[in-house]
Amino acid sequence: MHKSIHRFSISMSGDLVAQLDQMVSAKGYANRSQAIADMVRDELVEHRSAGGNRQIAGTITLVYDHHRRNIQARLTAIQHDHGEQIIATLHAHLDHHNCMEVLAVRGRADQVKKLADGLIAVKGVKHGKLTMTTTGREFAK
Amino acid sequence: MHKSIHRFSISMSGDLVAQLDQMVSAKGYANRSQAIADMVRDELVEHRSAGGNRQIAGTITLVYDHHRRNIQARLTAIQHDHGEQIIATLHAHLDHHNCMEVLAVRGRADQVKKLADGLIAVKGVKHGKLTMTTTGREFAK
Amino acid sequence: MHKSIHRFSISMSGDLVAQLDQMVSAKGYANRSQAIADMVRDELVEHRSAGGNRQIAGTITLVYDHHRRNIQARLTAIQHDHGEQIIATLHAHLDHHNCMEVLAVRGRADQVKKLADGLIAVKGVKHGKLTMTTTGREFAK
Amino acid sequence: MHKSIHRFSISMSGDLVAQLDQMVSAKGYANRSQAIADMVRDELVEHRSAGGNRQIAGTITLVYDHHRRNIQARLTAIQHDHGEQIIATLHAHLDHHNCMEVLAVRGRADQVKKLADGLIAVKGVKHGKLTMTTTGREFAK
Repeated sequence: MHKSIHRFSISMSGDLVAQLDQMVSAKGYANRSQAIADMVRDELVEHRSAGGNRQIAGTITLVYDHHRRNIQARLTAIQHDHGEQIIATLHAHLDHHNCMEVLAVRGRADQVKKLADGLIAVKGVKHGKLTMTTTGREFAK
Repeated sequence: MHKSIHRFSISMSGDLVAQLDQMVSAKGYANRSQAIADMVRDELVEHRSAGGNRQIAGTITLVYDHHRRNIQARLTAIQHDHGEQIIATLHAHLDHHNCMEVLAVRGRADQVKKLADGLIAVKGVKHGKLTMTTTGREFAK
Repeated sequence: MHKSIHRFSISMSGDLVAQLDQMVSAKGYANRSQAIADMVRDELVEHRSAGGNRQIAGTITLVYDHHRRNIQARLTAIQHDHGEQIIATLHAHLDHHNCMEVLAVRGRADQVKKLADGLIAVKGVKHGKLTMTTTGREFAK
Repeated sequence: MHKSIHRFSISMSGDLVAQLDQMVSAKGYANRSQAIADMVRDELVEHRSAGGNRQIAGTITLVYDHHRRNIQARLTAIQHDHGEQIIATLHAHLDHHNCMEVLAVRGRADQVKKLADGLIAVKGVKHGKLTMTTTGREFAK
């Protein structure tokens, strides 16, 4: 492993930077770099723990502004390529701009994760989250 | 809200940057900035959900065996007592025994949490999970 | 065919009889018998036109009071016996008592119809309706 | 509301009674009374839906090819203009091309009808159908 420190620049909306800085300060981080490094590590843990070929059920929750050009066409195209994993999608209109879309999914963990990654990476998705749960078979309860 | 794009530099270990880049590519993001912006928004959603009176949207995912005596009557009774927070519920039949129920919810964070806690505590619920997201208003994106 | 007139007695809640009588008069029927005979003929036409072994998609809409003893257990048991025909079910809480449940269905027309008949006949279902539509394949449009 | 059970007699041709009995049995009803009460409620729902300012619940079912240029953007734009009437939308992927979208709706009959007309008229919608039902309040059952 190379332990050297790398410096690189990133860009985001000024609005988001302002909100990031408030959180960095509220959480007591020394600076943005430290906070972002923590987020990256968290995300890596989640990224790796997911996947695998076990059967899971779950949900993918997306929030986006449906006025964003072509966003729905792109989200739907990805969904139709994963027809096998998607049971159905629930769409709620949060306000004039914002939609929440919830996909009920089922299948191999790695394929469900790939579907979630693809949807969340679509430009214009404000927040996306994969929630994995059991298919119920493993727990007798 | 200022929609201008801000550019700033951050630093982290070369090792972490390498792992970040692998994940950025595996998830299908166009670049590091887009991936990090998504992590920041994710962290903001979680950070703010701690604030009880903040408006949030989200989902509650439940898996249970519908043959359990009275389980549906109990789940529905709780849901009807929180009619204001629940947009709608999606019910999928996973197999002959197991159901996945996904509630699309919206409202004050503390009330949504109380609803989730109540549902997850019902005897016979094999797994339950509250996933919080944004109402979309806080992120201009 | 025997054209003789048969007379038989039926029972329903006094509340429903009152609403029936208002409608009988508003529609200009001479009496209840004439109105009910028309409803029976309408229902027979619908009953016969449905069915068959063609593939259809559609929805089954149910309204019921979830406080009715065991109604949900009975509705869910029927749904799990028709797992193949049901894509997913959307449940909306109309008020403290009343639920609207919408099943998205797909399959052979006769099997879907059997499922709908079974659900609508459950005691306590206030109103139920099968809406058949196309699977989209037959119309190029 | 008076919940007492009323018993009354009706008459129809023996031929029609025979066909009614076959249907009652095929549909799984316990007896003629139960089947006729369901027909009466169905007829009442339809009869009342003509009254523009009456509160109704219902579903709008749409089938379309999501590859049709801009069809989703158009459907969503109309839905966001009727946010008050729409509880949530269930989206099912029938195959690579065809989607079935089911809107759970509630509100004044005339406004719900206007929403349905607008959606069904969108170019590329292969089939659309408004199914009206009761909000449950009018039937004690």
